[in-house]
Amino acid sequence: MENGTNKWGFEDAENGPDTTTTITIKGLISLLMANIDEGNNKRLISLGMGDPSVYTCFHTSHVATESVVDAVESNKYNGYAPTSGLPQARKAIAEYLSRDLPYKLSLDDVFITSGCTQAIDVALSILARPGANILIPNPGFPIYQLSASFRGLEVRYYDLLPEKGWEADLDAIKALADQNTVALVIINPNNPCGSVYSYQHLKKTAETARKLSIPVIADEVYGHLAFGGNPFVPMGVFGSIVPVLTLGSLSKRWIVPGWRLGWFVITDPSCLFITPKIVERLKKYFDILGGPATFIQAAVPRIMEQTDGTFFKKTINILKQASDICLEKIQEIPCITCPHKPEGSMAVMVKLNLSLLEDINDDIDFCFKLAKEESVIILPGVAVGLKNWLRITFAADPSFLEEGLERIKSFYHRHSNIQHSN
Amino acid sequence: MENGTNKWGFEDAENGPDTTTTITIKGLISLLMANIDEGNNKRLISLGMGDPSVYTCFHTSHVATESVVDAVESNKYNGYAPTSGLPQARKAIAEYLSRDLPYKLSLDDVFITSGCTQAIDVALSILARPGANILIPNPGFPIYQLSASFRGLEVRYYDLLPEKGWEADLDAIKALADQNTVALVIINPNNPCGSVYSYQHLKKTAETARKLSIPVIADEVYGHLAFGGNPFVPMGVFGSIVPVLTLGSLSKRWIVPGWRLGWFVITDPSCLFITPKIVERLKKYFDILGGPATFIQAAVPRIMEQTDGTFFKKTINILKQASDICLEKIQEIPCITCPHKPEGSMAVMVKLNLSLLEDINDDIDFCFKLAKEESVIILPGVAVGLKNWLRITFAADPSFLEEGLERIKSFYHRHSNIQHSN
Repeated sequence: MENGTNKWGFEDAENGPDTTTTITIKGLISLLMANIDEGNNKRLISLGMGDPSVYTCFHTSHVATESVVDAVESNKYNGYAPTSGLPQARKAIAEYLSRDLPYKLSLDDVFITSGCTQAIDVALSILARPGANILIPNPGFPIYQLSASFRGLEVRYYDLLPEKGWEADLDAIKALADQNTVALVIINPNNPCGSVYSYQHLKKTAETARKLSIPVIADEVYGHLAFGGNPFVPMGVFGSIVPVLTLGSLSKRWIVPGWRLGWFVITDPSCLFITPKIVERLKKYFDILGGPATFIQAAVPRIMEQTDGTFFKKTINILKQASDICLEKIQEIPCITCPHKPEGSMAVMVKLNLSLLEDINDDIDFCFKLAKEESVIILPGVAVGLKNWLRITFAADPSFLEEGLERIKSFYHRHSNIQHSN
Repeated sequence: MENGTNKWGFEDAENGPDTTTTITIKGLISLLMANIDEGNNKRLISLGMGDPSVYTCFHTSHVATESVVDAVESNKYNGYAPTSGLPQARKAIAEYLSRDLPYKLSLDDVFITSGCTQAIDVALSILARPGANILIPNPGFPIYQLSASFRGLEVRYYDLLPEKGWEADLDAIKALADQNTVALVIINPNNPCGSVYSYQHLKKTAETARKLSIPVIADEVYGHLAFGGNPFVPMGVFGSIVPVLTLGSLSKRWIVPGWRLGWFVITDPSCLFITPKIVERLKKYFDILGGPATFIQAAVPRIMEQTDGTFFKKTINILKQASDICLEKIQEIPCITCPHKPEGSMAVMVKLNLSLLEDINDDIDFCFKLAKEESVIILPGVAVGLKNWLRITFAADPSFLEEGLERIKSFYHRHSNIQHSN
């Protein structure tokens, strides 16, 4: 059977998971970037991805950079770390998270991951079993669907309700769950919606999960990035009601998404979920992962202890200012409306009113034409599960943001089906 | 069904992969460490793991440290890298590997991973499909079995032949393969055996895989660490015979295993394996992985271009010297024999002759008692698939190595069943 067959070509990959329908945010952004017309001589303004690290106003703290540099230069952290993570880093993360909890986490509750992305995949891999399903918010984050399809988990979407500040539809959650449901995912502060859930809503969500006897996967990668009415409440606060698997990272709060330092944390003081068996399985699973560099892990205790409060405040202030600019400018663009003022994270969802536009077919068409004509990148809502919506990332230098939205306004006027006097 | 059921406790993890029988090297080493008797006042000598970075004589090159420090301090690499890797790092790795190949790799052939561990898991995950099996060497590296069990791949072991310099038993490979076999794994330079395969043996292995229409997974994490008669020949040299998935990292040659900078490279100039479909699937798979820090990736081009040849030569000289010491001392210890002089990597397998020992049951018993009595750690062969063998890592400061083996000799004399005059 030398050649001839398709075996080499791996054509029977059809037997593998179906991932063909999943559009990733990065994949879509790349396509949009490729559509930019450099002939229009406009500087590129990307409001497409949650990575503000390119803007000077969002540079990380000196202590973070210094801690990593010192760890590299010490030559003490070139070797392997334990696969679950360096004990001093696990301890620092446990203490950092415990500040906001009614009980203390221990280092054994913390597993260190390559960013929150790997933490998501760990959670889904560990919970996967034949026939299992998982409840995911819509709009949501496409990595969940992609990871679920690779790990053989069925995804069931529950809606976030724009008219209720993007709260989770708890009735839908109850209706979707069955005895094969293994977890409920909640993202707070929410990407892509920019909402921050209230204590009451989180508590009700925890109680719903308890009734269903499923743990909550709390994606808190935007933890503490709240600047509206609701303060950030970690889901772990309700760990006595329901076991919580908390996912987080340094990425957003310290503005170092490229450092890939994340965590998978079990917040389960009643030991409903943690058994010796699951811990054993988790440890073995971490043995096959890469994990973040040892010297970055070694820097974590100092980063968490010594980052100045003013650094965090500065970020919050810029994000608040940026979200205000964003909202104000959106109100000047008739074809998009924002159902809920952003209160956290780095992005907001706006609804596209196609009936006001002459030659735009859908959200994808809008974004491709916008990229071509205005060199502005925003994300089509379909990438996060909402067709004919748009996700705008406002974590950008305010002057860039303002210019970007101004160009969207011009774009609207050019494509509007209403006659303008000017 | 509030509590009462076992659902919380995740007891139906039985439906998941069976990983309970897999002993990992790190797990076993931890148990051995815990068995050390601090009362004996002997300094700990670990000859158990392939991580020499703790020894001053094995510190990484200045250029490697400087390149990473400069990348961190530039504040230019705090953001996300493309999930397949930073283009300049992929290009540098392609060029680095192409130096030893009869054709040029392109950056598209290279995917950057969190160390070689993640590269192993990528290879197995991408090839897994229901009913598939993979051919793995025995003795081998337990991560393969663990990854295979999590990814749902059946493992079939072929023997490495000590009497033939630990060459692969190609007849066994032919006998084990069937139409569900998806790949043949070969580790060269070999861990745990310390062998370096000849050009001829590698070519025959490639031809065997071609006959079976399966790609070769070439684990070359110890690439270039050869100091015996055979030079290191990358399996990719035979990429025109059979598609090769080359796994490697900076870990061993640059002595920075904790940096977690590895690669998964497709060496397939005839495009037997690479199809748009497999590339698409690989790209999506990388979207759910964490990957190494962007700034470490950014340092790769300079590390690969500017590391001085004398740095590599120094490592090779120390490893050669250390392996000579190791072999010499082993010959003074009657209960262990070395079937094949180590010529590469950082470890050697020796056979334990239990009939010369009075109160030692097996390799595990030997290692636990040795840890307790002599504070010396070596790895029981069972951890790499050979019961009643031992793996000794010689990548240690020569004075440590000498003392460690001297203590094994004392241990032997105390437990020998032969009457001694002294």
